[in-house]
Amino acid sequence: MDGFNFSTDVSVRFAETDAQGIAHHASFVVWCEVARIAYLAEHAGGYLAIQAQGIEALTTEVHLRYVQAARFDDRLRVWTRCRDVRGARFRYEYAFERDGELVADGWTGHATVDAMTHRPTRVPASFAEAVARAES
Amino acid sequence: MDGFNFSTDVSVRFAETDAQGIAHHASFVVWCEVARIAYLAEHAGGYLAIQAQGIEALTTEVHLRYVQAARFDDRLRVWTRCRDVRGARFRYEYAFERDGELVADGWTGHATVDAMTHRPTRVPASFAEAVARAES
Amino acid sequence: MDGFNFSTDVSVRFAETDAQGIAHHASFVVWCEVARIAYLAEHAGGYLAIQAQGIEALTTEVHLRYVQAARFDDRLRVWTRCRDVRGARFRYEYAFERDGELVADGWTGHATVDAMTHRPTRVPASFAEAVARAES
Amino acid sequence: MDGFNFSTDVSVRFAETDAQGIAHHASFVVWCEVARIAYLAEHAGGYLAIQAQGIEALTTEVHLRYVQAARFDDRLRVWTRCRDVRGARFRYEYAFERDGELVADGWTGHATVDAMTHRPTRVPASFAEAVARAES
Repeated sequence: MDGFNFSTDVSVRFAETDAQGIAHHASFVVWCEVARIAYLAEHAGGYLAIQAQGIEALTTEVHLRYVQAARFDDRLRVWTRCRDVRGARFRYEYAFERDGELVADGWTGHATVDAMTHRPTRVPASFAEAVARAES
Repeated sequence: MDGFNFSTDVSVRFAETDAQGIAHHASFVVWCEVARIAYLAEHAGGYLAIQAQGIEALTTEVHLRYVQAARFDDRLRVWTRCRDVRGARFRYEYAFERDGELVADGWTGHATVDAMTHRPTRVPASFAEAVARAES
Repeated sequence: MDGFNFSTDVSVRFAETDAQGIAHHASFVVWCEVARIAYLAEHAGGYLAIQAQGIEALTTEVHLRYVQAARFDDRLRVWTRCRDVRGARFRYEYAFERDGELVADGWTGHATVDAMTHRPTRVPASFAEAVARAES
Repeated sequence: MDGFNFSTDVSVRFAETDAQGIAHHASFVVWCEVARIAYLAEHAGGYLAIQAQGIEALTTEVHLRYVQAARFDDRLRVWTRCRDVRGARFRYEYAFERDGELVADGWTGHATVDAMTHRPTRVPASFAEAVARAES
């Protein structure tokens, strides 16, 4: 997918399907998280490296658009990029691809907070730099 | 909440929390669905009544904005309304309230398809009328 | 159901179904937890009352037997009782009923640990007494 | 693990943790299913090959024993074997290992039914033979 440098794959689990015979739409929200974790592991030392700095990243917004149904055992490529790292906020964008076709896309908004006080705190510099490198 | 005529309550299950000690953000997507089902039961004979007409309603879009964390055993009131019923498409809007405070809000987009052919098919007239009555 | 004094109801959510058109078997494990929380709320001041004593209850074993399929929107009555409270261990037993018929049954094993040290610690006396009253 | 010829790996997703900071116990039930699907893909042409014969495999029983907590991002090796293929029934056994230590173990019972009539029907010969080869 154009404009994405990173992807990770997920297979649709049987537990993630529903009685319409397709992957339940909430499953994509979980897969976005799986993709973020993989992105952080690849580019920024992993989510635990962020937590080690006493910082938690909260999800503040989710937007998903479903273009085609995904089915049990489908392998989906989740293209993922990080955008708009600014102050205590950043975004991820996603495109779900199956055999070259777009299945879904979307984005999530995030805020970093101090793990103790839960107050907004700037995104760690190491993360901002890792994203800048990953997305350049 | 202003502009909503219908609500249903959900309690945050322990299985719906995550290691941040709060309700996982994907849980809200499931609760929106629970609220839609309750809305249909109240106003339109239930989802099974729609299925009985050979029609499936797909979710085509999800948008959620998280304002405050929800925690285990919190009781959330999910204010729900249906909007923009037009052709083969409609929307639901949601506001999650706890003790008078907004916890999250959002909307979902839906499309009705023929259960056999999966082709777009108009929203059943009975549903459109039930919504018009419910939201007037 | 014979030998049970307590029950709580759950409705099968659409997200809890799978592509076989039935409630996914893992959903019952979550419903057992929902039933335990309801049992504690009714009889022992709620799970938060146990946590307030610095104690966590872990699940150490799960056994479920599926007798009949449950479907979307089915209302299941979850009969629940607590048994074998002894030292740092106890058990719950469950029977899932729909319209007078057994849908599933099973039990879960639990251990109480100190929330700080995670070492086994006796079940709080108040909980043991509440169970003795509830089950007599 | 002794007596197992097959394993697949799962990583604990953040969505699979709970407010105790550990993987929720119901997640293991889903991972058993993931492991069965991987086992079938490796040994018997995949679950879709069984479905193509007009047969569905239902889960009739689940037993899990939790020995140690699993945490976010833990990589678990799920050792899996199929046992007791007989008539319309079979079993899987599982051992969850992390860094050489047992985290959980258990088994699931299954029954094969005709996909149309939902009546018990013998396990397909091709599956029984594939299991015999895999487990010899």
